[in-house]
Amino acid sequence: MIKKSHYRIGIVGATGAVGREILSVIERRNFPENYIKLMASARSAGTKIPFKGLPIRVSEVTAASFDDLDIVFFSAGASRSREFVPAALEAGAVVIDNSSAFRMEPDIPLVVPEVNAQELDKNPRLIANPNCCAAILVTALAPLHRAAGINRIIVSTYQSASGAGAQAMHELEEQTRAVLAGEKPQPAIFPHPIAFNLFSHNTPVGDDGLNEEERKLIAETRKMLSLPQLPMSATCIRVPIMRAHSESVTIGLDRPLTTAQAREILSSAPGVRLVDDRLHNRFPMPIEASGELDILVGRIREDNTLGVPGLSLFISGDQLLKGAAWNAVQIAEHLIHHAQ
Amino acid sequence: MIKKSHYRIGIVGATGAVGREILSVIERRNFPENYIKLMASARSAGTKIPFKGLPIRVSEVTAASFDDLDIVFFSAGASRSREFVPAALEAGAVVIDNSSAFRMEPDIPLVVPEVNAQELDKNPRLIANPNCCAAILVTALAPLHRAAGINRIIVSTYQSASGAGAQAMHELEEQTRAVLAGEKPQPAIFPHPIAFNLFSHNTPVGDDGLNEEERKLIAETRKMLSLPQLPMSATCIRVPIMRAHSESVTIGLDRPLTTAQAREILSSAPGVRLVDDRLHNRFPMPIEASGELDILVGRIREDNTLGVPGLSLFISGDQLLKGAAWNAVQIAEHLIHHAQ
Repeated sequence: MIKKSHYRIGIVGATGAVGREILSVIERRNFPENYIKLMASARSAGTKIPFKGLPIRVSEVTAASFDDLDIVFFSAGASRSREFVPAALEAGAVVIDNSSAFRMEPDIPLVVPEVNAQELDKNPRLIANPNCCAAILVTALAPLHRAAGINRIIVSTYQSASGAGAQAMHELEEQTRAVLAGEKPQPAIFPHPIAFNLFSHNTPVGDDGLNEEERKLIAETRKMLSLPQLPMSATCIRVPIMRAHSESVTIGLDRPLTTAQAREILSSAPGVRLVDDRLHNRFPMPIEASGELDILVGRIREDNTLGVPGLSLFISGDQLLKGAAWNAVQIAEHLIHHAQ
Repeated sequence: MIKKSHYRIGIVGATGAVGREILSVIERRNFPENYIKLMASARSAGTKIPFKGLPIRVSEVTAASFDDLDIVFFSAGASRSREFVPAALEAGAVVIDNSSAFRMEPDIPLVVPEVNAQELDKNPRLIANPNCCAAILVTALAPLHRAAGINRIIVSTYQSASGAGAQAMHELEEQTRAVLAGEKPQPAIFPHPIAFNLFSHNTPVGDDGLNEEERKLIAETRKMLSLPQLPMSATCIRVPIMRAHSESVTIGLDRPLTTAQAREILSSAPGVRLVDDRLHNRFPMPIEASGELDILVGRIREDNTLGVPGLSLFISGDQLLKGAAWNAVQIAEHLIHHAQ
């Protein structure tokens, strides 16, 4: 990427939960921009979204939308990315794609900057932003892997409504109001009631019994940790939480780590805040992870149940931030910091 | 136990969430009783609770409360059980104790009838009713253990508010109303906000990093499956759900089971309802488990991540029913059925 004092930014999917959050993080981080173009489908075009106190009008995304943009964030789903990312690249922009469209292509870097920023040194034009659960998981596990070699992962998730978009968050709120008023909840976005309920992640289940979310989480974790054969089990569950995902994780290690060693590693790990106070029973919670750029990690304990040395831990991270928007902007920050 | 046409029943802790549910299950099951004595602390004495259309007045529990009772259910906490169970036994009653007071004593049977009903054949005078998570877990796992030998368990829980009592359920409801009204939730029963939040189980954490709930779950599962050395990892998490617990489980097996074999075993297992519809994405959910005597089991899939043959599965069960009241009444039903 060519070094500039300021960059021209595009956001495709600007009216969605993640798109809005990308804009908000750009403002919060004081990202060096001198132009922001917000794009969405025809249906959402015309919406005005405030940025630094002034409204920006959302335009319809077309193949001709990308002239003169330096960096374009895509967060409008995999089919929209497949349709328009080529045009953005053709127009000369660097693309950071939050969809699953290109994540598993061998030549496309899939990046969490704390984990594999070296992928960005190759000057890629298209960078894939990981699945929210995978981004949060590898941020916590990569430092432990570097220290002691991870050889197995078992993870069960507690995933917030935000992962299914702004309308799903609204559905959680409205259904909860309905249940408290003694009414029957009416699912619309989710296939099952989400108020005071939880359910297996609402993506198609394959013949191996894994749903798509679990398949992404496993494949992307393996790719980012450069462990393509890593034995890994994932169970992805949607819970009635607004915007932070949690993960209960047990890992096997090549070399043992004590709880104290793991805490020391994680307390100095980038992107991680250690919340591990046994005495006061304070551990990671979604309400404390919400709005935070860092993920929270705690409940760290030695666990040899897997038959090898190991650890168990509990993670909470903001699904819209480290799980999506912040990681994407962080990739952009890294690119412009190393631009020449 | 001496066979009778009808039995005189006592319930200690009758005003609590589980106590009320025991009374309700006795009515629902048309349990052969001709007298019900409801007992609680002095603070709750005088409360009237309806049974078969008529109110029963709750009396204060004392050492002299147990004369002429055949079966007494205790559900008023471990210290209350330690104080009054000896008097109930002395008075000649059979005691079914829902507290943790006696569960791990080697001579006291800890029973889930579907799992180890043979313990009841020894004519015990005191039977311990397990921890809610343990009861739900072993009901699902015992048939798989019988078929293929379980050699490891990794479980992460999604535990409802009811496990902390009626006031905790009320707190979940009231806090949720407050949050929806834009107010800050005020924790009273739980140490952390429960509305739209989740947290590590609110019991003291030991030096090994396990909280008391996890320690109970592990110890009681091992005792009921007669596997005292079983490697087992548990992470217990409280979620904003009213009255059903869920559990994400991965097990290692001595002999492989296919998904089809596991489904067949579980579909004919007592106390289990198989909910495992991959095509329509229908799996166990707390709202469907609530009010059910059976537990729901699904998301069954082969999983060899542990390095041995294995399975993953997801369970939801009513915390107040199979996790407490129903299991206790079920023990009583078994005892009177085999009484002579």
